[in-house]
Amino acid sequence: MKTLIVTRNHLAMLLQCINLNTLMDEVIEELTRSLRDFDEARTQVRRRDGFMFMRPRPGILEWMPIMETESAVLIKVVGYNPFNPVDHGLPTIISTMSLYDVRTGHLVALMDGILPTALRTGAASAVASRILASPESRVLGLIGCGAQALTQMHAISRVFDLKEVLIYDPNEESQSSFLKRGEFLGLNVRPAQRDALERESDIICTATSVEIDGGPVLSDSELKSWIHINAIGSDFPGKKELPLSLLRRSLVCPDFTPQAMVEGECQQLSEDEIGPNLAELVKNAGAYEQYMRSPTVFDSTGYALEDQVVMSVLLRYAQQLNLGTELLIETTTADPKNPYEIVNSMVLESLMQDSPNADLEMSTQPAYSFRRGESS
Amino acid sequence: MKTLIVTRNHLAMLLQCINLNTLMDEVIEELTRSLRDFDEARTQVRRRDGFMFMRPRPGILEWMPIMETESAVLIKVVGYNPFNPVDHGLPTIISTMSLYDVRTGHLVALMDGILPTALRTGAASAVASRILASPESRVLGLIGCGAQALTQMHAISRVFDLKEVLIYDPNEESQSSFLKRGEFLGLNVRPAQRDALERESDIICTATSVEIDGGPVLSDSELKSWIHINAIGSDFPGKKELPLSLLRRSLVCPDFTPQAMVEGECQQLSEDEIGPNLAELVKNAGAYEQYMRSPTVFDSTGYALEDQVVMSVLLRYAQQLNLGTELLIETTTADPKNPYEIVNSMVLESLMQDSPNADLEMSTQPAYSFRRGESS
Repeated sequence: MKTLIVTRNHLAMLLQCINLNTLMDEVIEELTRSLRDFDEARTQVRRRDGFMFMRPRPGILEWMPIMETESAVLIKVVGYNPFNPVDHGLPTIISTMSLYDVRTGHLVALMDGILPTALRTGAASAVASRILASPESRVLGLIGCGAQALTQMHAISRVFDLKEVLIYDPNEESQSSFLKRGEFLGLNVRPAQRDALERESDIICTATSVEIDGGPVLSDSELKSWIHINAIGSDFPGKKELPLSLLRRSLVCPDFTPQAMVEGECQQLSEDEIGPNLAELVKNAGAYEQYMRSPTVFDSTGYALEDQVVMSVLLRYAQQLNLGTELLIETTTADPKNPYEIVNSMVLESLMQDSPNADLEMSTQPAYSFRRGESS
Repeated sequence: MKTLIVTRNHLAMLLQCINLNTLMDEVIEELTRSLRDFDEARTQVRRRDGFMFMRPRPGILEWMPIMETESAVLIKVVGYNPFNPVDHGLPTIISTMSLYDVRTGHLVALMDGILPTALRTGAASAVASRILASPESRVLGLIGCGAQALTQMHAISRVFDLKEVLIYDPNEESQSSFLKRGEFLGLNVRPAQRDALERESDIICTATSVEIDGGPVLSDSELKSWIHINAIGSDFPGKKELPLSLLRRSLVCPDFTPQAMVEGECQQLSEDEIGPNLAELVKNAGAYEQYMRSPTVFDSTGYALEDQVVMSVLLRYAQQLNLGTELLIETTTADPKNPYEIVNSMVLESLMQDSPNADLEMSTQPAYSFRRGESS
């Protein structure tokens, strides 16, 4: 049983072949379809769980499992480390996605989760905005200009005819580099004061690494009466981006309610103050048209269904383009009751034929070590 | 950031170099050391969680996370599918182990979990038996002769001077093939009636796939007064191998109490009927010497600390022998705030130099598919 590993190279090649707009459009449409067809009897989503820590820096290592009944389980593992960019020159979110055959337990595929997370988080905002924002929205405001802001702008630009994008980040480097990062979209992007951004935007995406109790990142002074907010930075218990005043007068729609109540803006609300979730919105889009003219919030904590959609799209392309490395990882052998069969040299020989030994490589520096292991 | 993938071939080669006895001894000693040094402030273990299902066949897909603070998180994913051998010719337990750097979220290493699970489950029984069984134990009884029974026998044989191993399995094929599978150990193994096995054994390991409410697998009619049982088949809520009568008159020591109360023999007991856990046993072995002369049970549900130990040992050997394939999986690039940087062909070029494109391969049959993906 082989495991398909889609490496960074393969993803880079894939993106050389597939236009980014095509890819984003497809993720948006597939996500819409998946949400509309969502059936709890068929798809089980677990609220993500993880290890939270404060040392050496505050962060989380978490897992997000989703099962398609009688078919597959996807577990995305996500490191959320807001000091990654400063300390290590690495993204705040580093992630990998593993797909298992639920009928056997076999690891079917493994791929990066950084790019897919950015893509699907953008796509989710596009899906929510298409239902909740005014269809005449022309001005997008971005509060926070990090990695996620780029795909927010990209995705929203695919479903609205944007005439202007206003950006704000207290980190000047993020704000100025965003202009360059977003250049390929050919949009009219300009930095703005936060007050002006709030006053002029039809849609606002908040995508910040604001600290616990460091929020809100939005003042709620002069927002448009039809404002739609995609609050995507909420991903940590205690972390909030939006003021309670705004939440109280808005229709607040979480991606995944049980999770949003622990990690999202919904932490600030009681259950009866929370609106329909994203799947309910998509299933009954017509019923929510009235809210296009009033304040609405998409409380986006990150939903495993979105990961399933984006991985499915990328794997389909990888397959079409024959991109991927297949490796035999599990020690399954002819006799399922003999875990030591692999020791037998006959088995070894046949294994070698099956997958030639091109994959031997020097590993000089041990990147891996448990502290316990080192001390022995 | 490279991910070290230890393939099945690499493990086979590793086992060509390292004697199985040496390996088992090392896992037993490392596990003993890890349990003795176990400190909740440094090592956090989560009770495993998973998706349980009844169709197409009853099974579980579960994850077992453990964090070494400020260092690494290991997540072993395990498929427990008792019909795997019959339906697919595959082991009941199929598993992979993923190691993450907790400070960044990077996937550091990936390897098989089938062989390591068998090794560490055997080793755990050896550790428990060394403390709880009579040191004069000479007869081992095995109820259930599947994959796990082999490493039970192997591990116990490393810490006791066995003169005889009695085996019993209602599945005749399992029972007879076990003789061949265990031959390499040069032990005196013979099939026995279950009653005789219970009467003559000093130590018994139960390692069965008994169905929920199908147990107990042991009659508790004429057990020795100093009997020690390693009950390793308990891994499913509702599944039990031992009769309550035996548990009630024994010192019952779980590997991981919160988990054993949900999945293990401890399901049958109230909290005050449960003895010390394995770490407490090892830390205070002297205090439990008296129990070598009375009935004791090791309730082995599978403990993530054991996985950490065995992975650590195997990775150390892999490193010494330069075994492993290093792949760039995560799409980290020069700019941590630009998830689309990977699209840039300059980046692609530098990536290609970094890791030559030897890993492109045809993937003909799509092993991977979400049902949702197929229907589109």
